[in-house]
Amino acid sequence: MSERTFDVIVIGTGTAGREAAGRLAQAGLSVAIVERELVGGECAFYACMPSKSLLRPNETLTETRRIPGAAEAATGHLDVAAMFARRDDVVHHLEDSSYLPSFESQGIALVRGSGRLDGDRCVRVGSDVLVAGKAVIVATGTDPRIPQIEGLREVEPWTNRELTTHESVPARLAILGGGAVGAEMAQAWCTLGSQVTLIEAMDRLLGREEPFAAEQVAVSLRERGVDVRLGARAASVRRAEGGEVTIELEDGTEVKVDELAVAAGRQPRTGDLGLETVGLEPGQWIDVDDQLRVTGVRGNWLYAIGDVNARALLTHVGKYQARVAADNILGKSSAAIGDGPGSPRVLFTDPQVAAVGHTLQSAQDAGLNVRTVEAGTSANAGGNFYGRGAVGTTRLVIDSDRDVIVGATITGSEIADFLHAATIAIVGEVPLERVAHAIPSFPTRSEVWSALTAQLGF
Amino acid sequence: MSERTFDVIVIGTGTAGREAAGRLAQAGLSVAIVERELVGGECAFYACMPSKSLLRPNETLTETRRIPGAAEAATGHLDVAAMFARRDDVVHHLEDSSYLPSFESQGIALVRGSGRLDGDRCVRVGSDVLVAGKAVIVATGTDPRIPQIEGLREVEPWTNRELTTHESVPARLAILGGGAVGAEMAQAWCTLGSQVTLIEAMDRLLGREEPFAAEQVAVSLRERGVDVRLGARAASVRRAEGGEVTIELEDGTEVKVDELAVAAGRQPRTGDLGLETVGLEPGQWIDVDDQLRVTGVRGNWLYAIGDVNARALLTHVGKYQARVAADNILGKSSAAIGDGPGSPRVLFTDPQVAAVGHTLQSAQDAGLNVRTVEAGTSANAGGNFYGRGAVGTTRLVIDSDRDVIVGATITGSEIADFLHAATIAIVGEVPLERVAHAIPSFPTRSEVWSALTAQLGF
Repeated sequence: MSERTFDVIVIGTGTAGREAAGRLAQAGLSVAIVERELVGGECAFYACMPSKSLLRPNETLTETRRIPGAAEAATGHLDVAAMFARRDDVVHHLEDSSYLPSFESQGIALVRGSGRLDGDRCVRVGSDVLVAGKAVIVATGTDPRIPQIEGLREVEPWTNRELTTHESVPARLAILGGGAVGAEMAQAWCTLGSQVTLIEAMDRLLGREEPFAAEQVAVSLRERGVDVRLGARAASVRRAEGGEVTIELEDGTEVKVDELAVAAGRQPRTGDLGLETVGLEPGQWIDVDDQLRVTGVRGNWLYAIGDVNARALLTHVGKYQARVAADNILGKSSAAIGDGPGSPRVLFTDPQVAAVGHTLQSAQDAGLNVRTVEAGTSANAGGNFYGRGAVGTTRLVIDSDRDVIVGATITGSEIADFLHAATIAIVGEVPLERVAHAIPSFPTRSEVWSALTAQLGF
Repeated sequence: MSERTFDVIVIGTGTAGREAAGRLAQAGLSVAIVERELVGGECAFYACMPSKSLLRPNETLTETRRIPGAAEAATGHLDVAAMFARRDDVVHHLEDSSYLPSFESQGIALVRGSGRLDGDRCVRVGSDVLVAGKAVIVATGTDPRIPQIEGLREVEPWTNRELTTHESVPARLAILGGGAVGAEMAQAWCTLGSQVTLIEAMDRLLGREEPFAAEQVAVSLRERGVDVRLGARAASVRRAEGGEVTIELEDGTEVKVDELAVAAGRQPRTGDLGLETVGLEPGQWIDVDDQLRVTGVRGNWLYAIGDVNARALLTHVGKYQARVAADNILGKSSAAIGDGPGSPRVLFTDPQVAAVGHTLQSAQDAGLNVRTVEAGTSANAGGNFYGRGAVGTTRLVIDSDRDVIVGATITGSEIADFLHAATIAIVGEVPLERVAHAIPSFPTRSEVWSALTAQLGF
């Protein structure tokens, strides 16, 4: 057993943990970072990164085929082997050595093993004891949530890990859950050649997003051949000897597939984290204040950033929280004002769905006095050249009492980077009247802003 | 001779004129609009629209070829005939009937012929006399400027019109002028198969933009085989009997081509507009105030919008000014604050160049106390999937006295729609500290904003 002291100990090397460690080390603090699995975290190996490598080829090829002159040059088929090879490159063949040099160069001590809190400012990793002079940051992220469905665990369903890194294409694939992961992965695997069945208990996909966005994604998936089952609940699951999986739905119908994947939400990786040694309940999400300090723990030494605090389960939010936590640890008072349920989010389906702030529903639920305006994302000169003929809608949610934008949802082809304009307008609380003086360029699809501000009377 | 009275008379049916007429008619005013050529204007038939139809196919195909899995499906060649056919569709085969129904439905009287001011509130079109109850709006735009070069007019050079609508591909094409039009058209015609020589008198392309942007475009054009001649001035031009055009440069070298195009700036279409009847000098740019009223004309009845007032020769700026002018005519006091030299602008070269507000140079010339930050536009997770491996830089110009962004230049693959975030930040004067709380989504290239704000200490 050895005992070492650092200014800060970070548990978890995902995007949030690495960002915090890097910022603190750069500021001159001594930092240890603890990892029990691959250094780099879930996003890098099993989520955002590989999923985008599987989604992007079809997206760009679809766009090229919309453009006369280029379409004639793109008559071949997607190359599944090349997609897998690229995906394997993106996840570094599930090998984490590429992340190590940056720790070394920054003087961050990497400690491999399961980090476990052991009372005030103390983290145990196996027989090692790490003591934090200033702070411990929990950035352990989440595991897939496996719903209580008869037989589900026994069939060993795919989770986000297999959905993003599996090496072959099942002929038939069912996905339980029509949220962000389910919708993206239905899109990816149908592109790869699977017959996909997407099973969602609610009567719509993408429960938190604007209904029009969910509907557009559902229509698009169905057009591509995905069997989208809404309002469908799995009652039981079983695997036959040959490997075939049968999902019995509550309405009595059966779906037979070669693989079944679960995309039914996440649960915090806090079960074996020693939370009980600091007076918290194991296995629960960790509550934090706007400084990312864990509530209920005295002494301002324990922080939780990233998915594990449930403010918003998004990589970029974790990165943002890392900055806020690091600032506070460094004595620069900072509050997280850009995260939470209204955090910006992008789905790389076709159409893409990008949203920030409120939907109409969430604004009404919050008691705001709002109105909305909508316009076609490609219904402008730019739509002749980008996302030509593609479905897409942009909706702004306006707080009528303050005359500022409080929500934006944009759907369309390759519109992910449209979102930041809305994010700056919302976070910057730019008065509508001023937003209307920000001229979008002709002929770009950003002119959708002109259509929207015109409807608002400008 | 007939005399008719309208609330407002608009001279010119380009984007600016149509926008103003539409807004005024919608507000209940009687409106006449005068056009001597094709209804729709230069942008629709001979500039932005056809040029983008010639540029977009290569852009999307290039992007698809960057993406493993899709690249394998796009092994063919650009189809020049299909590009021309699409371009012809975009310009409605140089036929303007598609613009007429919207005038009819809005109750706008279209008067074909050359509009000429004839004193206070009066416009003559041939033998027709139109009298304006409230206002006359000049929106006549510009003609190409033909520099004083020996023999140039005699060879009947192409201008923006032939550059955008010519029906065949010359084997060799020279373009005089390396500004926005010259750079875009060099790119387009080299893609179409011409051997292009781009001749620019300055020692760089894109004189008004950031030097790094100009350099990236020059390198890219050269890589595609364009002969970019910087610091090169044409001394004389002559056409041989067989049609070959010889351009003699001041350094004595000769360039021999099949067609020569001029892209050397614009001059106002005000030579035969009757400006002398209202006390102004014909042939000059028309000065306006921030309400778009012509300076030096009493009675607040004469407006000039769009390129003809030289505030910024951009379609979207004309459209914006149309709104401001219409608001003022309708009694809603409004000032143009979003246009001028810092107006947003996008070049559809490869890389694209999108800029708004100041460059470093223009900010320093304006006496501002500024600093800059720069980051690679694709140097982030999103760059693995979009604009992969493509050149691109994003620079922000910060006013250090006010801690706000006063300029942004973004280069990269398909980054046109990145610009509006910067435009909103600049026009909204969003404090830097607040900009840094606007979280860009992972993995999008908008994370370049995080790299930039991190350099700014956030």
